[in-house]
Amino acid sequence: MALIVQKFGGTSVGSIERIEAVADRIAKHHASGDQLIVVVSAMSGETNRLIGLASEISDEPCPRELDMLVSTGEQVSMALLAMSLQKRGVDAISLKGSQVAIKTDSFHSKARIKDIDSTRLHAELSAGKVVIVAGFQGVDDQGETTTLGRGGSDTSAVALAAAVNAAECQIYTDVDGVYTTDPRVVDGAKRLDSITFEEMLEMASMGSKVLHLRSVEFAGKYGIPVRVLSSFKDGPGTLISVDEDNLMEAPTIAGIAFNRDEAKLTMVGVPDTPGIAYQILGPIGEANIEVDVILQNVGDEGKTDFTFTVSRNDLSRAEAILETHISELGAMEWRSDSKIAKVSVVGVGMRSHAGVAATMFRALSEVGVNMQMISTSEIKISVIIEEKFLELAVRALHSAFGLDADEAGDTDA
Amino acid sequence: MALIVQKFGGTSVGSIERIEAVADRIAKHHASGDQLIVVVSAMSGETNRLIGLASEISDEPCPRELDMLVSTGEQVSMALLAMSLQKRGVDAISLKGSQVAIKTDSFHSKARIKDIDSTRLHAELSAGKVVIVAGFQGVDDQGETTTLGRGGSDTSAVALAAAVNAAECQIYTDVDGVYTTDPRVVDGAKRLDSITFEEMLEMASMGSKVLHLRSVEFAGKYGIPVRVLSSFKDGPGTLISVDEDNLMEAPTIAGIAFNRDEAKLTMVGVPDTPGIAYQILGPIGEANIEVDVILQNVGDEGKTDFTFTVSRNDLSRAEAILETHISELGAMEWRSDSKIAKVSVVGVGMRSHAGVAATMFRALSEVGVNMQMISTSEIKISVIIEEKFLELAVRALHSAFGLDADEAGDTDA
Repeated sequence: MALIVQKFGGTSVGSIERIEAVADRIAKHHASGDQLIVVVSAMSGETNRLIGLASEISDEPCPRELDMLVSTGEQVSMALLAMSLQKRGVDAISLKGSQVAIKTDSFHSKARIKDIDSTRLHAELSAGKVVIVAGFQGVDDQGETTTLGRGGSDTSAVALAAAVNAAECQIYTDVDGVYTTDPRVVDGAKRLDSITFEEMLEMASMGSKVLHLRSVEFAGKYGIPVRVLSSFKDGPGTLISVDEDNLMEAPTIAGIAFNRDEAKLTMVGVPDTPGIAYQILGPIGEANIEVDVILQNVGDEGKTDFTFTVSRNDLSRAEAILETHISELGAMEWRSDSKIAKVSVVGVGMRSHAGVAATMFRALSEVGVNMQMISTSEIKISVIIEEKFLELAVRALHSAFGLDADEAGDTDA
Repeated sequence: MALIVQKFGGTSVGSIERIEAVADRIAKHHASGDQLIVVVSAMSGETNRLIGLASEISDEPCPRELDMLVSTGEQVSMALLAMSLQKRGVDAISLKGSQVAIKTDSFHSKARIKDIDSTRLHAELSAGKVVIVAGFQGVDDQGETTTLGRGGSDTSAVALAAAVNAAECQIYTDVDGVYTTDPRVVDGAKRLDSITFEEMLEMASMGSKVLHLRSVEFAGKYGIPVRVLSSFKDGPGTLISVDEDNLMEAPTIAGIAFNRDEAKLTMVGVPDTPGIAYQILGPIGEANIEVDVILQNVGDEGKTDFTFTVSRNDLSRAEAILETHISELGAMEWRSDSKIAKVSVVGVGMRSHAGVAATMFRALSEVGVNMQMISTSEIKISVIIEEKFLELAVRALHSAFGLDADEAGDTDA
């Protein structure tokens, strides 16, 4: 008998029919003797419907009231799931964040979990109940309802798994695991049986939105094994493992990640002096714009070009900041380009395998893709390329690293 | 500066546009210096939508989970109203039943309020805020969400008014007050400036569904002045007063109430012995069927007929019970008739004015309406008639008691 935390996302509980299917799955699992805590998101579309109502009233609704509003979404789906289980003869109870209690700080709409009281969870489990918990929400010290921000239900599930020391945290979603790359781009993309937290973090931050970034960080920090599974078909999914040592014969590269959501800004002809990077990026950071890849050219006659990438959503704000500061920086002009994309090879194996960069650059060069910027970390190499070459580059890299389904690169742990 | 509790029903907050209109009204009132506690229902249709989702899953959903589900409706409307007030520069905060706290017993879906803690209400009011409270919901001693049953938002408002000792409880609705009778039946129906709790109770129990019966009982018990007003147009509404002595020159009759929702059952030829009424009505009561008017004919040769009325919804169940018991009661047969209606004249004035019954019976006889059953109380006379004569009877009585708008029967207090 194991204690398992399961999380079902909005698509998985998006209609009564789907809620009933989830109840079938839980009832079957419960009958096997495992204790289950089930975290649910709001029915798909519901959170957006509620935010839409608020935005009809105000462009900047009070975060406290917005949390009061959107936290109803999970309350609806969890009550319906409880009813559906009860109909099947499974004793079940739904609990709001405040009833658990999932204690958070008071930053409405982006609260962080401080502590989870497991007393009631254990009491209900001991009484033989399936405990259904509202994802995405918590309660602060003053009893105010808080939400964890988008994707927060994954974080709720992982935090609950840590609080009750669960054997595994299973994230049910609309895909059947983590793939070597997006199957919509590469036909031969393969499901990974396992991946490390570090690799998953890099994949997630690149736009592989199977899991919310924060929940992966959280799971890694507390060493909670997380499994990504499909709500709609049976299968082993992908296990995100605590420790790469668990992976026998780890492959060099776990996958190819990519992100279209980047834009590039260049400050042309700034003085090549110490501190110029800070002078440019300081105001950007103050405006809460995150910078990704940074490139400073070698100076020529005391002048240099300074290039960095931001999220496309932030491009116009970043442009305005550069425009404001151009004269005080002594720059000649600024330029921007939103027709770029980032492609990354990710894998803990590259720590011990030389030549990953060489293989990557050769593969891109062979298909004629020019690299505009390069950024590396211990387990990742990213390049910025023209957006129109994105699919071409991903396919070439997927093949070059032996990840195609019919090739030898076995990813089984 | 007065402390006022206001309640806005589902129709009044049924769309963003209407919520904005309610916010306008509250902002204007708040600017006058009064302290306001505002109770809201769910947006019209929302509670039914949620119950519909539950009924797709189960015919008898667990009441605890049903409360968890439907209590979200008020949480949505109160958050939207708070945002709408904040946009107008009015400091506002919304509170769930558990946050107030509105303490109830644990009878889910029909909980009764035990106690209201006014500490937080007074704190928020003292901070200059308009306090918006979710109607219809409370919390039990175990922290479980409860609901008060349909119409419970009126009860929430009256109970809050009692808890904070409010000067007045204002119920905003889609009518502009209580009328002498249904204006859809009698063109000359007049809005009453005031009415006593006892009269309002009789009017409400007759199908004048301006206010929920339980809230009127509650207001009468605690002596909270209640005013019924329109959300959509300005006007003084109708004051439901604590004490009839406040009404100078109370009119004889406050209004003509009626109810189409009755059905009549007759047990024919039962033995005319003591206890026969109990033997017939006992099983009816055990089946939770409420009996309204009762008539036992004078016996003839030791046999009598026993007639009573029930709600039409309960008719088929009541018929089945009579059928089951007919032989043991020694009755000859039973009959039923659902084509009946009840018409009542209501008024505290009839206590001191003789001749009300005579006026009523003469008026009905003049238009050829036959009375099948008669029932009286201190402030009400009801008659059961054929349903097809209902409008005719109501108009005749409205006129006979001088209630028509162009007549002298002034109802001003």
